[in-house]
Amino acid sequence: MKDGMNSRILLDCAKNRILASSPVFRRQQFLIRCVRGSIDHQSQPRSRGMQTLMSLEVHSVGLIRAITPPLDPTRHKGQAGNIAVIGGCREYTGAPYFAAISALKIGADLSHVFCTKDAAPVIKSYSPELIVHPVLEESYSVKEECKKSVASKVLAEVDKWMERFDCLVVGPGLGRDPFLLDCVSEIMRHARQSNIPIVIDGDGLFLVTNNLDLVTGYALAVLTPNVNEYKRLVQKVLNSEVNDIDAPQELLSLANQIGGVTILRKGNSDLISDGDTVKSVSVYGSPRRCGGQGDILSGSVAVFLSWARQHISAADLNSNLSCKNPTVLGCIAGSTILRKAASLAFSNKKRSTVTGDIIECLGKSLEDICPGS
Amino acid sequence: MKDGMNSRILLDCAKNRILASSPVFRRQQFLIRCVRGSIDHQSQPRSRGMQTLMSLEVHSVGLIRAITPPLDPTRHKGQAGNIAVIGGCREYTGAPYFAAISALKIGADLSHVFCTKDAAPVIKSYSPELIVHPVLEESYSVKEECKKSVASKVLAEVDKWMERFDCLVVGPGLGRDPFLLDCVSEIMRHARQSNIPIVIDGDGLFLVTNNLDLVTGYALAVLTPNVNEYKRLVQKVLNSEVNDIDAPQELLSLANQIGGVTILRKGNSDLISDGDTVKSVSVYGSPRRCGGQGDILSGSVAVFLSWARQHISAADLNSNLSCKNPTVLGCIAGSTILRKAASLAFSNKKRSTVTGDIIECLGKSLEDICPGS
Repeated sequence: MKDGMNSRILLDCAKNRILASSPVFRRQQFLIRCVRGSIDHQSQPRSRGMQTLMSLEVHSVGLIRAITPPLDPTRHKGQAGNIAVIGGCREYTGAPYFAAISALKIGADLSHVFCTKDAAPVIKSYSPELIVHPVLEESYSVKEECKKSVASKVLAEVDKWMERFDCLVVGPGLGRDPFLLDCVSEIMRHARQSNIPIVIDGDGLFLVTNNLDLVTGYALAVLTPNVNEYKRLVQKVLNSEVNDIDAPQELLSLANQIGGVTILRKGNSDLISDGDTVKSVSVYGSPRRCGGQGDILSGSVAVFLSWARQHISAADLNSNLSCKNPTVLGCIAGSTILRKAASLAFSNKKRSTVTGDIIECLGKSLEDICPGS
Repeated sequence: MKDGMNSRILLDCAKNRILASSPVFRRQQFLIRCVRGSIDHQSQPRSRGMQTLMSLEVHSVGLIRAITPPLDPTRHKGQAGNIAVIGGCREYTGAPYFAAISALKIGADLSHVFCTKDAAPVIKSYSPELIVHPVLEESYSVKEECKKSVASKVLAEVDKWMERFDCLVVGPGLGRDPFLLDCVSEIMRHARQSNIPIVIDGDGLFLVTNNLDLVTGYALAVLTPNVNEYKRLVQKVLNSEVNDIDAPQELLSLANQIGGVTILRKGNSDLISDGDTVKSVSVYGSPRRCGGQGDILSGSVAVFLSWARQHISAADLNSNLSCKNPTVLGCIAGSTILRKAASLAFSNKKRSTVTGDIIECLGKSLEDICPGS
């Protein structure tokens, strides 16, 4: 924000074709594409879309500062966030690790993973910082006649911890095993009964798209679809194809149709709606598209959502924030931090940037916005 | 200590409100809260509590210098400490690793972990520096009719090593499986028979609170409860609720009631008592409350306790230390080093500090106090 990005956006790209080979020019083009693709309404002049974008960028910094809790020595372990990721199976182990470690690196005190027995030793070995529970089961390891009792046991294992969590992240590396997804559906129902926010990504979105009742009308649910996941969601809920011309309106309708859940539509610009309002985050990130960045996002959104909820609860009606929905605030903050971290990592590692490099930049990204004492 | 902290404590905070946003001022406030919360008796003027605190800070540096063994090329492997952590089960693997690696990083020569068979490969994978014994068993893997023989085998495996250990740490990541806890109770009884000090944390405190006879009257036992663990201990032993107004007196009574064990009550200031004396450590640490710092503390206390015992034994009556109880000395030194390391790590990593970052600062923290040759 401070580096004059805004002024660069306003340059007339047509007059700068001679600069086509420069990184600055390519960045301009990228930002202008963001603006064209996701913000502009057909009926609005382009400059208005740019203004919307720029004013939002300012807000994202202000709101991150508002919701990030003070680093106060009188606070106890857990008060800055206790996050649980539901994911990790025989096939996938990186995704739940990325989500859970991101939560810690942003500033949560505790980060859990609930995964299958095969996945647990691997996820544990990535980092001793995570608390990894080997409790989920896939169909191949459960006899038909045992499914009911195994499902009860899985649920009981998660329920023991449920009340302690500030937010669940459901989906990173979850896989699509039907028995496992049935268990996870029950976990989501219990979380909902306890009013625990749920961020849903990856295979969690596959589950939810086919079982919309799991989230319909639950204001503390956040869906974070990528292009394909969004397409399936639109087809299922709006019974239509994605309309990029009027993306904000479509997203608003979609969130509305699912009863006011919050949707973060990932793209060049991230678009966020709870069915009531639409926000956009287009802070410059990175052109590197290495897998795993969506997992960082889900962990980040979970932490900021928890902080936003605490902030709003503590501030009551005194908060200066124009938006009072913690899920929307969490999405804006999470998206902003990921983009800043991706940008930082890319400036160091360029084309060889991997997801772990971005995670290592999360701390500095937040520190730049919101310096700790 | 060298950076003028004492003089900062003495500043009048009321006159410095204009500095409220500065880190120095917030640190002052924190130190003053420590003093108010834990040291002052209601009947004493505040300045006396501050003096107590400051005089203790000086002692903690002096005593660390006194008990830390010289780095003498003529010494053999093991003479600087051989520590064993009893902990690590299917669910928890990070905690025993943190405790055991902290012991090594402070300067112990050898660090062992005795854990379950599931946990061993994971803990081994965190670091090749540790000696990890996969000997404990949880109920789910032992048939009822085999329990007696399995328990004997577990005990024999630990007994083979027992005499070599300078201190046990019982509890980090131990879990609460009844069969496993029965075996660990026996291990503690054997350690006690051999006069081996035992530092008890985490699930070890759950075990001990429900089986006080394991430590009652054992002067080489150290309990390191956090807020909740302390609460349960007070309820069980003193049959009352925690009284924060007269915390030092309560701690003294508690340690006395358990027959002179040493208790390190973790908090903004750590309070330490063996039933005879009360000490406090309030060196500035870090406002970050990431899980795992208690595990570092237990490993640190184990090393310093071993060193203090060696020092007192060698110095006989010639030691200049006013306190001659190695468990109290170990607690003061362990608490001081953890706090200094946490402060160092936080100054580098701020809000994204995790437990591993603190462990990496243990060496420098000790070096600052007690430079090696």
